[in-house]
Amino acid sequence: MTVTGPAIGLDLGGTKIAAALVAPDGTVLARHTRATPAAGGPDAVLDALAAAARAVDGGTGPGPGVLGVAAAGVIDPVTGTVTSATDSIHGWAGTALAVGLAARTGLPVACDNDVRATAAPELAAAGAGASLVYAAIGTGVGGAVAVGGRMVHGTAGIAGHLGHVPSPEAAGLPCTCGGTGHLEAIASGPGIAAVYGRLTGLPVDRLETVAERAASGEEPAVRAIVTGAVAAGRVLGGLANTLGPDRVVVGGGVPHIGPLYWDALTEAFAAELMPPLARLRPSRPLFGADAAVIGAARLPTQVPLHAPPPS
Amino acid sequence: MTVTGPAIGLDLGGTKIAAALVAPDGTVLARHTRATPAAGGPDAVLDALAAAARAVDGGTGPGPGVLGVAAAGVIDPVTGTVTSATDSIHGWAGTALAVGLAARTGLPVACDNDVRATAAPELAAAGAGASLVYAAIGTGVGGAVAVGGRMVHGTAGIAGHLGHVPSPEAAGLPCTCGGTGHLEAIASGPGIAAVYGRLTGLPVDRLETVAERAASGEEPAVRAIVTGAVAAGRVLGGLANTLGPDRVVVGGGVPHIGPLYWDALTEAFAAELMPPLARLRPSRPLFGADAAVIGAARLPTQVPLHAPPPS
Repeated sequence: MTVTGPAIGLDLGGTKIAAALVAPDGTVLARHTRATPAAGGPDAVLDALAAAARAVDGGTGPGPGVLGVAAAGVIDPVTGTVTSATDSIHGWAGTALAVGLAARTGLPVACDNDVRATAAPELAAAGAGASLVYAAIGTGVGGAVAVGGRMVHGTAGIAGHLGHVPSPEAAGLPCTCGGTGHLEAIASGPGIAAVYGRLTGLPVDRLETVAERAASGEEPAVRAIVTGAVAAGRVLGGLANTLGPDRVVVGGGVPHIGPLYWDALTEAFAAELMPPLARLRPSRPLFGADAAVIGAARLPTQVPLHAPPPS
Repeated sequence: MTVTGPAIGLDLGGTKIAAALVAPDGTVLARHTRATPAAGGPDAVLDALAAAARAVDGGTGPGPGVLGVAAAGVIDPVTGTVTSATDSIHGWAGTALAVGLAARTGLPVACDNDVRATAAPELAAAGAGASLVYAAIGTGVGGAVAVGGRMVHGTAGIAGHLGHVPSPEAAGLPCTCGGTGHLEAIASGPGIAAVYGRLTGLPVDRLETVAERAASGEEPAVRAIVTGAVAAGRVLGGLANTLGPDRVVVGGGVPHIGPLYWDALTEAFAAELMPPLARLRPSRPLFGADAAVIGAARLPTQVPLHAPPPS
């Protein structure tokens, strides 16, 4: 649908809910955050989402007519439900996210996963009809793929799981999904820290510790970071050969560890490319911390709306 | 555009041109084949394509109003030109395929690469709005990707090059594209034969020789075939996680070598899948030798038409 007034965007994470009232041009008119009652189960989380929506819907001017919600896990925007999720929110898998929130707010609700929502402003910035590969490299490795200006959702909303593809650098490593040898196992923050731990026999909990040791020239730290960066760059380069995207964007927390990471990723990416793509390079996100709520507020223009039940 | 009458479909290969007059329902009304004058250069090939078109356009009933041509190499349907190609047709890269053929036939011409054309009937069979991953595993490893019922073309027509993604089984092997460690290097027919040659010290020219030796229980032959099949299955499973397609089809000559290949590919594919895709399995093509010309004849409904120059 076309949205002419402001819309509410909600971003649900395992620890925090972010809410914003967003104008059609992407301007954030009001913001609110609150803790996610993750241990309280789906009803408590839906109540908290509704409260966050009310918190940004109290100003002057026309009120929001629609609500978009972005959430972690595999979200199916067509059915409006949580296809699958880790247990970071207790009992979250199977939750009727869209209808549950529509019932609580009285607004029509569109939902999708948080990575696609975060990538949506990047896609819009690439121009009408653009294609995009977006990677989110953090605690896990996720992503979003768009073709012809539209996000690809795939069966049950699964599309974008580009952390779960074979990576030569991850050979033999167990993946969080139950598979083996996937990119996430070597390129996520915990994956890089684990490589460092195996190389040195000195386990570390935080990627930042590895980054600090790499900055001081410690060879195993450099090697762990470069290995993760090369693995990600190679997979993204191969995906570029498969899809021929206009833009490749690498977001998430891991790329912030510094130029050692970014340069290795870029070089590995470029080495994979077929000649017609030779000038393509990964870029950093144009949008910062607000991207998820702005993208969530845009969801009603992109995916099906779920109406509140008749009262 | 909508095509109401029969259309001409042409399939240009390095050795043979196939032509067909195809009814809108996909029925082949007339067929013709002739040799590709590959050494003669682009003008000779365009002349031969036009002659093949005339050979199927001589019957009763309404004549064809449009022509679709499928060709090997990277073809850009938007510009109607050959982005890049091997030199199996001398000087083929850069050829103005669509306009050159429109000028010779007087018909509007749509063009695309042969793998996408071959995959088009498979996509149509998957239903309106379907998404498809199609792999063509033969002398090379190519493919086609479709989302929301439309083929993905990508920058300069590059999309579908799923043979040029990192494969753990291909680590360190040189690829025809100039890269290293790509799927094509281990999963193509020559790739499988080369693995057998390295394992045994006995080079073989033909994949069929390896297949015969595997059928008689020779262990290195079994290992070479299974390695190629596993490599392809893993990459396709990872691509399924990334795109969540409705169908995954594996065509080309290599899968014909027998159940040893197909079973290993299917098992490796299934092992990669995220839980929401657990029931997805690769399938064999529904369409046989006519798929490319039928798909070529359908191109005018899918990609831009290039008009003949004014006379």
